[in-house]
Amino acid sequence: MSETEWARSPAVLRAMRQAAELGQEVLGTTSPNPPVGCVILDRRERVVGTGATRPVGGEHAEVMALRAAGEAASGGTAVVTLEPCAHTGRTGACASALRRAGIARVVYAVADPNPMASGGAEMLRAEGVSVVGGILESEVSGGALRPWLHFTRTGLPHVTWKYAASLDGRSAASDGTSQWISSEESRTRAHRIRACSDAVLVGTGTVLADDPRLTVRDGDGSPLPEQPLRVVVGDREIPGSANVLDDSAPTVRLPGGDPDHALRPLAERGVVGVMLEGGPTLAGAFLRAGRIDLVEAFVAPTLLGSGSAALGDAGVASLSQAWRFHFERVTMCGQDVWISAVPFEG
Amino acid sequence: MSETEWARSPAVLRAMRQAAELGQEVLGTTSPNPPVGCVILDRRERVVGTGATRPVGGEHAEVMALRAAGEAASGGTAVVTLEPCAHTGRTGACASALRRAGIARVVYAVADPNPMASGGAEMLRAEGVSVVGGILESEVSGGALRPWLHFTRTGLPHVTWKYAASLDGRSAASDGTSQWISSEESRTRAHRIRACSDAVLVGTGTVLADDPRLTVRDGDGSPLPEQPLRVVVGDREIPGSANVLDDSAPTVRLPGGDPDHALRPLAERGVVGVMLEGGPTLAGAFLRAGRIDLVEAFVAPTLLGSGSAALGDAGVASLSQAWRFHFERVTMCGQDVWISAVPFEG
Ligand SMILES: NC(=O)c1ccc[n+]([C@@H]2O[C@H](COP(=O)([O-])OP(=O)(O)OC[C@H]3O[C@@H](n4cnc5c(N)ncnc54)[C@H](OP(=O)(O)O)[C@@H]3O)[C@@H](O)[C@H]2O)c1
Ligand SMILES: NC(=O)c1ccc[n+]([C@@H]2O[C@H](COP(=O)([O-])OP(=O)(O)OC[C@H]3O[C@@H](n4cnc5c(N)ncnc54)[C@H](OP(=O)(O)O)[C@@H]3O)[C@@H](O)[C@H]2O)c1
Repeated sequence: MSETEWARSPAVLRAMRQAAELGQEVLGTTSPNPPVGCVILDRRERVVGTGATRPVGGEHAEVMALRAAGEAASGGTAVVTLEPCAHTGRTGACASALRRAGIARVVYAVADPNPMASGGAEMLRAEGVSVVGGILESEVSGGALRPWLHFTRTGLPHVTWKYAASLDGRSAASDGTSQWISSEESRTRAHRIRACSDAVLVGTGTVLADDPRLTVRDGDGSPLPEQPLRVVVGDREIPGSANVLDDSAPTVRLPGGDPDHALRPLAERGVVGVMLEGGPTLAGAFLRAGRIDLVEAFVAPTLLGSGSAALGDAGVASLSQAWRFHFERVTMCGQDVWISAVPFEG
Repeated sequence: MSETEWARSPAVLRAMRQAAELGQEVLGTTSPNPPVGCVILDRRERVVGTGATRPVGGEHAEVMALRAAGEAASGGTAVVTLEPCAHTGRTGACASALRRAGIARVVYAVADPNPMASGGAEMLRAEGVSVVGGILESEVSGGALRPWLHFTRTGLPHVTWKYAASLDGRSAASDGTSQWISSEESRTRAHRIRACSDAVLVGTGTVLADDPRLTVRDGDGSPLPEQPLRVVVGDREIPGSANVLDDSAPTVRLPGGDPDHALRPLAERGVVGVMLEGGPTLAGAFLRAGRIDLVEAFVAPTLLGSGSAALGDAGVASLSQAWRFHFERVTMCGQDVWISAVPFEG
């Protein structure tokens, strides 16, 4: 079996999927570092160590996994979602750590687009380690690494617009009622998206209308210790008593207008993944600026026929100017349909 | 094996699914008779005859299938989507025909709710034929028989509201452009729904805005010989040159106001299945009246943010008054999501 054939063997693919899940588990806790997962297989292809990126200042996934594997790593394989880094930053290059642990083969999914860190594969090959990249690349790059890859390529945070609406696209009834438009399963799912975000962004309109908390809470409703940054965009005053200004999480105010005036300062603070949580005005402004990178729509099995539209003016006058997306995943979520859509690349 | 166990055996279930497909193929051509499918199995459970309801005045499915089976039917099984009729109408009771052909066992999916025709099962049992009903009942009653079952129970046609919209629920852009909002696959699918309907219904608004033909056409665009009735509802004049008034299919004009003022005369004409093809005003009026029995939504992967909403005022003021549905089927149709929804039965 050639190296590239072997890198696609069931044991390695299984390990890569496990590594992707490990990365998913730390999404939202590692920024501005990538949420990487790593699985160490011994010579007989048994899993002997797993790891994921620790919060900033902590170890990279490879180091965590090697530590768990100990001696068993020698002569084994490291299966990792991102190309091991070559730079010696706060934690030392992962490529060196892998070589020192006696790893014989490295399989990774996504090449590191970061010029500072890339070159890990070359460095390892130069040391005699066999390296295969690109395994399950599209699956992995659409997972936990997606926001970080976007951030690294564009310098701007990755924006996920989440909304809940009726089948006919209304996010509130005509008297303004909008609570529980979607099912409990959808709200749980949306809460999880929030927990995996570095920042949650709303306009002053949503704060004034709904007075949301925008925190991540446990089953009892108490805020968890780790919270995404809360961001309120817009020029209107909000009352000092607004829930979003309580002390359960940090909050920043940013000016309205060009969405980049909000996104750039967030990028500078190390915010990689932003969840845009409403409302229609801000979503329209972000869409018009081309700043929506993923749509997470929870569509309830209801028809309203009136009330607030989920999406406000997005600069479309004619059908040919419609913002085109690709439905990446469509699944049931409780009684709702959960649709994930990404911008269509012509 | 008991009779009821045997009626759930793979050979019988397979035959029932085939019978359901045969019924589907004639949907739209049999009204006001039900589109029934029938499969005859011989003593060794081989398919020896199939049939489906012929257009009005023609034979029922059982008679067609028995004719195809000939001598081989003797001692065999009839698998049929609807309980064989007991009444001796234009075609003679199917129950008698089955007995005369020497059929030993009858398996059906749905009991006949029509008091005039029901009793077929009893009649057969009295003659010594073994009869099992209710096999794949919910699957079959949600298929080709659905409009007819609704019509028989309520005395009103079954209304399928079909619409195409962007993910945010717009069926036209703000300049009015709405052509090709959905993909070719969705348009083909919608065309098939039209071909299976007895009547296609629009408001004067759609005629005045879009001047649609509302015909069923073949691949070249020429109208097929069999056409659903075209129905235009509303009080405004429409120009004599309107496409909907051409001679490719019959057209009736009915008054606006209460949807039942349109549905009752259609029922009297033997219209069982109606396809409501727009626009938002009429859809809202039908929904408000509780007269939408199935929604076929084609949701395109686009965002518009402005333009005409797919659904107009439906009498909902607060979220608690939302019209609740159940998503019966959600599938991809080309690049679109095709959502079938039925009213939620609390
Ligand atoms: N179902 C859902 O998923 C969902 C989610 C959230 C909200 N909602 C509903 O949405 C409603 C609130 O709607 P909304 O549209 O007023 O809320 P919004 O989009 O959160 O806030 C709109 C405000 O954001 C500010 N803003 C900041 N940047 C902007 C830009 N680039 N362009 C335009 N405005 C910008 C403006 O306020 P300034 O004038 O202060 O600058 C604007 O009035 C509420 O009823 C809420 O219930 C629904
Ligand atoms: N994307 C799609 O799936 C789709 C499908 C169809 C249409 N459309 C779009 O919809 C737009 C037309 O919208 P529309 O709402 O004007 O069309 P419509 O719903 O077809 O027609 C509305 C008219 O129907 C009459 N009507 C009959 N019974 C009624 C009742 N019970 N309640 C209220 N009105 C009743 C009224 O006309 P009178 O005043 O004459 O009584 C009313 O103005 C067009 O732009 C078209 O492109 C989209």
